[in-house]
Amino acid sequence: MALHCRIVGDMKEKELLMIPGPTPVPESVLHAMAKHPIGHRSGEFSKIFMNANSMLQELAQTKNDVFIYTASGTGAMEAGIANTINPGDKVLSLVIGVFGQRFADIAKLYGAQVTEIKKEAGENVTAKELEAALAQGPYKAVTITHSETSTGTANDIYSLIPIVKKSSPETLVMLDAVTSLGCMELEIDKLEIDVCVSGSQKGFMVPPGLSFIYVSEKAYKAKETCKTPVYYFCWKQAKKALADKTTPWTPNVSLIVALEQALKLMQEEGRMAILERHTRLRDTLRQGIKELGLKLLTDDRSASCAITAIWPPEDISVPDIRKILKSDWDITVANGQSHLKDKIFRMGHLGFVSDRDILTGLACLKATLVKLGYKLPVKAAV
Amino acid sequence: MALHCRIVGDMKEKELLMIPGPTPVPESVLHAMAKHPIGHRSGEFSKIFMNANSMLQELAQTKNDVFIYTASGTGAMEAGIANTINPGDKVLSLVIGVFGQRFADIAKLYGAQVTEIKKEAGENVTAKELEAALAQGPYKAVTITHSETSTGTANDIYSLIPIVKKSSPETLVMLDAVTSLGCMELEIDKLEIDVCVSGSQKGFMVPPGLSFIYVSEKAYKAKETCKTPVYYFCWKQAKKALADKTTPWTPNVSLIVALEQALKLMQEEGRMAILERHTRLRDTLRQGIKELGLKLLTDDRSASCAITAIWPPEDISVPDIRKILKSDWDITVANGQSHLKDKIFRMGHLGFVSDRDILTGLACLKATLVKLGYKLPVKAAV
Repeated sequence: MALHCRIVGDMKEKELLMIPGPTPVPESVLHAMAKHPIGHRSGEFSKIFMNANSMLQELAQTKNDVFIYTASGTGAMEAGIANTINPGDKVLSLVIGVFGQRFADIAKLYGAQVTEIKKEAGENVTAKELEAALAQGPYKAVTITHSETSTGTANDIYSLIPIVKKSSPETLVMLDAVTSLGCMELEIDKLEIDVCVSGSQKGFMVPPGLSFIYVSEKAYKAKETCKTPVYYFCWKQAKKALADKTTPWTPNVSLIVALEQALKLMQEEGRMAILERHTRLRDTLRQGIKELGLKLLTDDRSASCAITAIWPPEDISVPDIRKILKSDWDITVANGQSHLKDKIFRMGHLGFVSDRDILTGLACLKATLVKLGYKLPVKAAV
Repeated sequence: MALHCRIVGDMKEKELLMIPGPTPVPESVLHAMAKHPIGHRSGEFSKIFMNANSMLQELAQTKNDVFIYTASGTGAMEAGIANTINPGDKVLSLVIGVFGQRFADIAKLYGAQVTEIKKEAGENVTAKELEAALAQGPYKAVTITHSETSTGTANDIYSLIPIVKKSSPETLVMLDAVTSLGCMELEIDKLEIDVCVSGSQKGFMVPPGLSFIYVSEKAYKAKETCKTPVYYFCWKQAKKALADKTTPWTPNVSLIVALEQALKLMQEEGRMAILERHTRLRDTLRQGIKELGLKLLTDDRSASCAITAIWPPEDISVPDIRKILKSDWDITVANGQSHLKDKIFRMGHLGFVSDRDILTGLACLKATLVKLGYKLPVKAAV
């Protein structure tokens, strides 16, 4: 009998998601979500909503307003552009993958003159490249991806953002922190980030359906002179509702109740402990992948704590690896995106992930490779 | 001892929502939602998604594409405008309350020249008024609210829409069916509705967080010549993804799994049976309210099957009625909106609502009024 999971009937529910979202969800969060919905204009809801709100601020180390959108992270990215950018505005976009490109594309759609710093997959933007591009400014905004989900590469925001602030203090810094917030260090007030977006199905251990946008005073001021039409994602509507401890439109009540529970769990674990855990998960996985003799897309210094992109061995295809991992071990890993489709595979390790999950993932990947005819290096064969 | 609920501890979970959304949710739908999320790019998800999609088409009697947005109904309304309207386009808006006004306001925000047919609260638009307004056209689009949530008044779409089609066949008919779909008869293909929007937390018996937009071929054509920027709600992106049996951005997987379950329940009950039940619930409630000696905002011929707006007796305030209904009986009813705040209260009866719930609501309302000093008419005192 072959050594693998036999996925029939109820065993289906054993699936282990190792993708960059949806990520695994704790039972108590699922239970909170499954309660009968309460009215979104009730005092009971306002209390939960404002509690989630203040925990979101604490997590990102900021006093800036945060708006909770019933939408995915892409909606929040569009909100950042649509509330601040007028046609003709100059925008600098740091593009290190699919999601950096998306931010640039949205800005173009809204009529911005976009300059892109475009890097090869696996590379991030250097201080020198940023300085050179800023010299061609001034820009109304700079868009930066913190953790690029398509490559598992992170930009060093603690090096890059101060460069923008120093060379061009009027420029809005817009950060895509969709897969980084709650996984990697990110202090909005210290870095003076003007617009920061994230999503529930990532580090927050909540199913997809909510996104968050943190807005600075400077970004609000840009909104005041912005003529671009925006309604559902409008900051004026959101700010007015927030003062009334609610949202302008009917929110996803059940997910906000779940979010509050997840943020309580995160508060209990502690911000620094969460960041240390994600660093450890990343390092353990990368070490294990190297011991298996496989190559990583991103080097150690610029590796995301949320997701790791891996080259398959020669003569073994990404679709085969994903297929066997799923059929034999009920583990779902992500394919590459765009031009990296079928070239790399990506293992997510953000949110409700333990050290045990990483060992599990590595052990099952090893068995999968062996089944596909891969000869293990001596060290990994033990 | 007073005769009322004693809402302490776990008894809190006995709350009965009689608001126009969130509406009560069946246990099997909550359980479906509470399952661990699956990957949104998996075959398993595509199957659920497409099944929900085809049941949504059946419910609205259409072969038009339907897009499922992770957003509230307001987002879908904005999508209708943003995908079709260029600045300067003429739009006719039928405004019979807050939500009709919202559709008009969104069109104005996007630069449309909006003509409003504005009615007093409780009244709907007549055929003559529509004909007169259409004579001032042609309009690129007409926005119509089917069931106006703020007043419980319905427009007679089977009378009005054919007038638009006859007098101005090029005009796009955009219908806000947020509280009507699944409660009131609405056949998209028969009426040739070009854009129809609805939301999960209404007739669908699902928590808030999803909205739906049905798009005709004619509306797609308008999209092709529309220069308005739109990304998250873009129909081109949604149509391309639908061909791949998925959504362009990460959807709320858990709610779509819940939606599929709710639509199965609806299919089991049957479309006509659902519509008959909602008609009966409305008529029973209205009859009971009249027997209590209270006045209704809307007359019988134009009453919505989703929600009923009620004037309080003289000398008894809406806040007091809502407060006692909640504190003594754990029933939440809605206040009036906008200029009707504290003037009327609204009882929702859409979605997972039975005849028993209506009798319960009436009995508790009666007890509440008596406690507040109201003298019942002889008939109701029995």
